[in-house]
Amino acid sequence: MASIRDVAKKANVAACTVSRVMNGTANVAPETRQKIEDAMKELNYIPNELARGMFRQKSGTVAMLIPSIRHPYFSNLAHCIESKLYEKGYKLMLCSTDGQIEREREYINILKTNIVDGVIMGVSDLEDNEYQQFDKPMIMLDYDAGKKLPIVVSDHEKGGRLAAEKFMESQCRYVIHIGDRELSKVESYKCHTALAHALNAAGIENRFIEIKWNEFDFSGYLEIAKTILEKYPQVDGVMAADIQAAAFLKAALKLGKKIPDDFALVSYDGTYVADVNLVNVTSIIQSADKIGDKTVEILLKLMAGQKLTKRKYLIDVVRKDGETTK
Amino acid sequence: MASIRDVAKKANVAACTVSRVMNGTANVAPETRQKIEDAMKELNYIPNELARGMFRQKSGTVAMLIPSIRHPYFSNLAHCIESKLYEKGYKLMLCSTDGQIEREREYINILKTNIVDGVIMGVSDLEDNEYQQFDKPMIMLDYDAGKKLPIVVSDHEKGGRLAAEKFMESQCRYVIHIGDRELSKVESYKCHTALAHALNAAGIENRFIEIKWNEFDFSGYLEIAKTILEKYPQVDGVMAADIQAAAFLKAALKLGKKIPDDFALVSYDGTYVADVNLVNVTSIIQSADKIGDKTVEILLKLMAGQKLTKRKYLIDVVRKDGETTK
Repeated sequence: MASIRDVAKKANVAACTVSRVMNGTANVAPETRQKIEDAMKELNYIPNELARGMFRQKSGTVAMLIPSIRHPYFSNLAHCIESKLYEKGYKLMLCSTDGQIEREREYINILKTNIVDGVIMGVSDLEDNEYQQFDKPMIMLDYDAGKKLPIVVSDHEKGGRLAAEKFMESQCRYVIHIGDRELSKVESYKCHTALAHALNAAGIENRFIEIKWNEFDFSGYLEIAKTILEKYPQVDGVMAADIQAAAFLKAALKLGKKIPDDFALVSYDGTYVADVNLVNVTSIIQSADKIGDKTVEILLKLMAGQKLTKRKYLIDVVRKDGETTK
Repeated sequence: MASIRDVAKKANVAACTVSRVMNGTANVAPETRQKIEDAMKELNYIPNELARGMFRQKSGTVAMLIPSIRHPYFSNLAHCIESKLYEKGYKLMLCSTDGQIEREREYINILKTNIVDGVIMGVSDLEDNEYQQFDKPMIMLDYDAGKKLPIVVSDHEKGGRLAAEKFMESQCRYVIHIGDRELSKVESYKCHTALAHALNAAGIENRFIEIKWNEFDFSGYLEIAKTILEKYPQVDGVMAADIQAAAFLKAALKLGKKIPDDFALVSYDGTYVADVNLVNVTSIIQSADKIGDKTVEILLKLMAGQKLTKRKYLIDVVRKDGETTK
């Protein structure tokens, strides 16, 4: 296979001139460019992405940090981002921090070397300034790390409002929302704030209960769900992430509650986990596809040194009504 | 924070001597070692993993290639491997090929550079010699790529036999096994061979039907399941991967079949997807934990230049009996 040196020799120019033409990094006289392009055609030269990357000081690789690879929402989002990046000629390297701040910090340190051209941050355990100090193109996914960094995120407030509507239509009197830590800095927490706001305005009692999100032990979730429903027998509505929602559904049925007459359930995220159940679960769906497309679009702009017109990109969420609400 | 140079200055030795002590790469006189260790203590020197890696020509990073990050089995396995690697001081970079041979090849090319110290191959689209030509420590997960490369894999034959037992106990007369392409080179295909063998021996009719494994469109799977069950109304048993199994369960109930009297179902993999359902699904469980532990153990040996005592490591599978079989 012809190398960049063969092309340079054929065109009677220096190899670095060939690479300049390949990468469009500097002005090259039109006739020189023509000579090089002719030589490439004649030699059937296929630019090797990796070689091209080395010339450009680019790796052609983007990293994405996520809190858990096991979480169906993140694994689906990673898939969408990877597909989109691939379309644009980039590879994705995925780093999962297991929700641990030390791991997040260590990955960021590794990524400061020349392995990647840009970073997508689906994590949020560091302080704003730690993200801001990272000197490569970076985009945030669920955490607003201040004015230097763009963020692409679901419209979680709308998500909370859409869920509230369903609890009202189901005539609920006491709704529990299950989530991770009460973290106002994490954007997804806004679905709880919006839900509480709407339910309070309608005079519906409600309460936020924290459950660890990254255990992935379904029988454990089932136990917790049962305990909560026994402790609060008056509860007639629950909003929870897909897997925990499935646990509440199972627990409520075991306790003899009728769905949706005695008990309404809204699942958050709307991954395939909400679909596999025998009962069609009412879900708020985050569009991983749209988040992925927008994230890659913005990151490519940053990597090309372009200015962004705005900093925060809100992606619409929708509700799919199922059999678990009226 | 103290640097390696500060330590060298304090101990009155060259920086490379300090790094030799840190990495144990060469003999250093005991008194010199003591001086260096004292200086480290005094300066409260914390060796930076990355710096240490650069001295050792190691990155402290392992890559894992998988066919899909969305697949609950692979995402769970990646999680287990990552946790184990982290325990041992390594980071994991995950690359998902989307089942495409071109992507697999491109990732392998990237990984030939100095980004990673070793590679875990959870993919299987290339030819044996392409894997064998890779010149870093490599371990295979579900594909036996020939005598040069070690493989850690579930005992899929046992998985097939355990499933067959349940179909027999459920008095099935016609069992369908759903899978991806008929690929004898992929180890997981052995569960189908073993299932067919056992069912044939018992005079139970059976048939393998191919369904794309990486669509993740549950309503699509549901349609396919319905079509298959309508085309083969005599079918009274199905073995399929977790998500597809959920689709068959839903389709069978919609067609008015009684579970497990008219229809028995066995789910393969046994991820949390099999657990979230309202009905407890009988599952063959691949132990991602044990596969992860063994894989990391073997890879670390390879990276340390140790010889392996054997090449193939078979990990036990178990069956969890649920409500979908007799």
